[in-house]
Amino acid sequence: MDISILSEKLNHTLSTLRYGENPKELYEPIRYIMALGGKRIRPLLVLLGAKMFDDDVEKALLPAAAVEVFHNFTLMHDDIMDKAPLRRGQQTVHEKWDANTAILSGDVMLVRAYELLLNVEPEKLPLVLRLFSRTASEVCEGQQLDMTFERREQVSIPEYIHMITLKTAVLVGFSLELGAILQGAPQADAEHLKAFGDNVGIAFQLRDDLLDVYGDKAKFGKQVGGDILSDKKTFLMLTALEQANAQQRQTIIGWRDKTDESIAGEKVKAVTQVYDQLHIRQQTEQQIDLYFQRALHHLDAVQLPDERKSMVRNLALQLMERDS
Amino acid sequence: MDISILSEKLNHTLSTLRYGENPKELYEPIRYIMALGGKRIRPLLVLLGAKMFDDDVEKALLPAAAVEVFHNFTLMHDDIMDKAPLRRGQQTVHEKWDANTAILSGDVMLVRAYELLLNVEPEKLPLVLRLFSRTASEVCEGQQLDMTFERREQVSIPEYIHMITLKTAVLVGFSLELGAILQGAPQADAEHLKAFGDNVGIAFQLRDDLLDVYGDKAKFGKQVGGDILSDKKTFLMLTALEQANAQQRQTIIGWRDKTDESIAGEKVKAVTQVYDQLHIRQQTEQQIDLYFQRALHHLDAVQLPDERKSMVRNLALQLMERDS
Repeated sequence: MDISILSEKLNHTLSTLRYGENPKELYEPIRYIMALGGKRIRPLLVLLGAKMFDDDVEKALLPAAAVEVFHNFTLMHDDIMDKAPLRRGQQTVHEKWDANTAILSGDVMLVRAYELLLNVEPEKLPLVLRLFSRTASEVCEGQQLDMTFERREQVSIPEYIHMITLKTAVLVGFSLELGAILQGAPQADAEHLKAFGDNVGIAFQLRDDLLDVYGDKAKFGKQVGGDILSDKKTFLMLTALEQANAQQRQTIIGWRDKTDESIAGEKVKAVTQVYDQLHIRQQTEQQIDLYFQRALHHLDAVQLPDERKSMVRNLALQLMERDS
Repeated sequence: MDISILSEKLNHTLSTLRYGENPKELYEPIRYIMALGGKRIRPLLVLLGAKMFDDDVEKALLPAAAVEVFHNFTLMHDDIMDKAPLRRGQQTVHEKWDANTAILSGDVMLVRAYELLLNVEPEKLPLVLRLFSRTASEVCEGQQLDMTFERREQVSIPEYIHMITLKTAVLVGFSLELGAILQGAPQADAEHLKAFGDNVGIAFQLRDDLLDVYGDKAKFGKQVGGDILSDKKTFLMLTALEQANAQQRQTIIGWRDKTDESIAGEKVKAVTQVYDQLHIRQQTEQQIDLYFQRALHHLDAVQLPDERKSMVRNLALQLMERDS
C-alpha cells in the first residue's frame, strides 16, 4: 500500500470529525484551524507506526486524529503566546477572533483530543492515556522553556536541545509509539519506535533552524533569515554565540533588537557572514546527521523484517529531504 | 462519620499532589492557585456521592482531586478572560505572573486532571472519562456563553439558566455522579444524583446572584451590589429588564456603563429600588426554591435508605443556608 492511501484515509477521518455546534463562537475556530491543513505528519506517523505491525490500520484512525487535534490545540495556544499574526498563511485564531476565543476553543480541543483517544480498545486505554498525558505535559514544558529562553541572556546547546525535544520531538515519538501500541506491538519495539521518533523530531527541528538561513527561499516558502531578523535563539545562533570571537560576538550583539524590515537584508547578511566564518552550517548538518543516525539505530532495533519498516524509514528520509 | 473527616481526608490528598517541578514557571502557578484554598465543595461532593454507596471512599480520593484540579484550571483561564485582578482575595495568576503563564499552566492542569482520573478502576475508566470530557466541554461552552451574553443587548431568562447550567451546575452534578459510579452504584441512581447536583448547582448560582444584592455584607464577604455596579447580566437584572415599565427601564439603562466607585452607592441604591418595586427578590427566591425542590425530588428517587442520603442532603441545605 502506498503512503498516499493512508493519507487519504486520514484526511477522510479528519473530515468526518464533529467538534460541536453551540455556541458557534466556541466551535467555529476549531473547524477553522483544523481546515488550515498542514502536512498532517503526526497522525500519519500514528498510521505508519500501526501499519508496521498490522496492515489493518482502521482502529488507529481516530487515535491518529486525536494527535492532530492535540497538535492544533498547541498551535492555537502557542500563537496567542507568541503573538503570531499568521498560521499557514492565514490569520491566526486570536487575530481573526480574539485571545479569549483562542484560549477557550483551544481548551475544548484538548478535551476533544482525549475524547478521540477513548476510541482505543479499553484494555489499552490506561497505558495510552498515561503516555499521551505525559507527552502533553512535556509539550507544555517545552513551550514554557522556549518562552523563558527568549527572555534569557544565555542558553546552552544542551538546554536548547532539551527544549526542542519537549516542544517538538516527543509528540513525533509518541505518534509512532501510539500506532505500535494500538496494534499490540511488543513493548521493546514500541519503545524503540518512540526513540526513533524523538530523534527524528530533534533532527527535523534542527533542519528547520538550518533552512531558515541556508534554505532555498522558493522551496522553503518562508523569508530567508526570518529567525536572524527576529533574534531567535536557534541552534545556529546559540552555537555561533558560543564560538564567536570578540569581534564576531560584537557583530551579532550589535544587530540585536533591530528587527525592522528595512534593515532585514543587511542584518541577515552580516549575521550569516559570522555563521559562515564559524562553519555553523556544517556543524548543524553534523548534528542533524547525529540525531538522524541515532533515530535509524532505534528503527533497526525494531524486531520486524526490513520491508515492514521501509515506509516509516522512507517518510523520515523524505522529511529530511535525503536519499538515504 | 462526620463530614469534617471526609474534608480532612480530601485536604490531605490535595496536599500530597505533585504537579511537576521543571520549568518552575510552569508549575509554580499551579501550586499557587491550588493553595488559595476555597471551599473544595466539588471534590467533597465526589466523596459524599461515593460514601452514599460504600463507606470506604479511599478509591474516590484521587478522582475527587481531579475534579478540584479541573475546577481550578477553569478559574485560572476564566480569570484571564474576565481580566479579574483578584481570586480569593489574592492576585490572580495572570496578574502575579502574566497571561501566557496562566494559559500554559492552565493547560497542564487540564492534563493533570485527566491523569488523576486514570486512578479510576480500569473497567470504569471509559465511562468516567466520557462523562468527564462531556462535562469539561459544557463548562467551556458555559464560559463562552457568559462572555457572549455580556456583549449582547438581550438575554432571555431561559438562555441565562442554560448558561449557568453549563458554566456552574454540570460540574456539581458530575461530581456526585462520579462518586456514585466509582462505588458501582446502579446507573439510575447515578443519574438521579447527577440531576440532583445539576439542580443544586443552578439554585446555588441563583442564590449567589441574589446575595450580591440582598446579602449580608459582613457574612457574604463581597461588596454588596458588585454585580449591579459592573452591569452584570444576572438573573435579577434580566428579570427586572423583562418586567420593567418604561420609567424603570430608563433608570436601569441610564446607570449602564457608569462603573466608577465614586457613584457606586447611588447606582446600587437606584437599581435595587427598581428591583424592590418589581419584587425581584421574592421572584428569585421562588426560582431558587423551584430548582432546590427539583433537586430534592431526584435525591428522593435514589434507591437508598434515607440515612445514607442525609449527608448529601445536609450539605446541600447548608450550601443554601437553609434548615430544611
